[in-house]
Amino acid sequence: MKRVAVVLSGCGVYDGSEIHEAVLALLFLDKAGAEVQCFAPDKPQRDVINHLKGEPAEGEQRNVLVESARLARGNIKPLSELDVEALDGVVFPGGFGAAKNLSAFAVDGPAGEVDPEVARVIQAAVRQGKVVGAICIAPAVVAKALEGTGRSPKLTIGTDADTAGALEAMGALHCPASVSEVCVDEANRLVSTPAYMLGQSISEVATGIEAFVQKVMELA
Amino acid sequence: MKRVAVVLSGCGVYDGSEIHEAVLALLFLDKAGAEVQCFAPDKPQRDVINHLKGEPAEGEQRNVLVESARLARGNIKPLSELDVEALDGVVFPGGFGAAKNLSAFAVDGPAGEVDPEVARVIQAAVRQGKVVGAICIAPAVVAKALEGTGRSPKLTIGTDADTAGALEAMGALHCPASVSEVCVDEANRLVSTPAYMLGQSISEVATGIEAFVQKVMELA
Repeated sequence: MKRVAVVLSGCGVYDGSEIHEAVLALLFLDKAGAEVQCFAPDKPQRDVINHLKGEPAEGEQRNVLVESARLARGNIKPLSELDVEALDGVVFPGGFGAAKNLSAFAVDGPAGEVDPEVARVIQAAVRQGKVVGAICIAPAVVAKALEGTGRSPKLTIGTDADTAGALEAMGALHCPASVSEVCVDEANRLVSTPAYMLGQSISEVATGIEAFVQKVMELA
Repeated sequence: MKRVAVVLSGCGVYDGSEIHEAVLALLFLDKAGAEVQCFAPDKPQRDVINHLKGEPAEGEQRNVLVESARLARGNIKPLSELDVEALDGVVFPGGFGAAKNLSAFAVDGPAGEVDPEVARVIQAAVRQGKVVGAICIAPAVVAKALEGTGRSPKLTIGTDADTAGALEAMGALHCPASVSEVCVDEANRLVSTPAYMLGQSISEVATGIEAFVQKVMELA
């Protein structure tokens, strides 16, 4: 049985994990027979966004692990407990949480630092030849974590030229792909797909994430 | 194109909509070609549960519509704007939110009142021959909304004898079904499935909700 960690970043597209992407990743991993464990950093969210208005909820503070637990129905562990050696792969769903809580890409662009625990997990996984999967904006986190390692990761990020440029500014190679397509970097054992960077509907996103999980499981 | 409303009750199994059930309903409705619009009551949640600890988050207050917007990626309307006549069907995902925010079943059992807007929608839908779909614990809301109308709705609720007894105390007929099965009440045009009342995994729950959506679409 393949053991796969899913690293969450909160619960909601604008300040946490994109909910549809996270649930679809959990669904297809379970259908593929993976043994899945969710993790998230135990720290405050960068911000809380009112998803009805699309505006910051002033004065509110939430914790990344506590909110991620909603997606995992309570079955989640602090990212500090993730033992990369015990796993076959690690998957990062998208959502602004990846670029706000797992890294600072959303606020600082290519200069934005990756959370130290997240960087540890990605670097160890790649070094140990484990599969790392990244959905939507999460490839920006993987690129930054591998910056300066000389690995030139090949990753999707959608079709927006500025975002692709930012990805390449961190030493990655942008891999163009449609919402239903998956990019595989065989050398670094990375799998990525654009999901809601391009998707217009949950069905489209599901098609891409199903193909993504199939590749993750093949490589794991 | 069939127009289906999905009525949410927050975002998280213990104080809102069960996230997997809600996302899977949205996925299969979209795949089936339905035109979907999400709705939720614009009112405070009954409580906020820390999903990591499974305990109340003392002093926190959240709004049902604002939190439900996370599941809908911001594309959601207040339940008061739901025009039953303009729809072919209404779907209620489960989660404690159904029994805490859409009704008071979780706290008051069969005596627990249904939110007036929720009751309006269910009663109008049944009167007008629209399809009403209810997942997991949500059939308890449908049963209470139809109590005293002489309709004897036939609904699933899982296999727990106390919960089934509570459903029947509200005038409903309990329809035994496994996690992959769907119960159809042809006379009242009701569709229900147990989902996480019985499901042990997201794949199992997906099988039941896919079959549920197929029935909803057939009847709509």
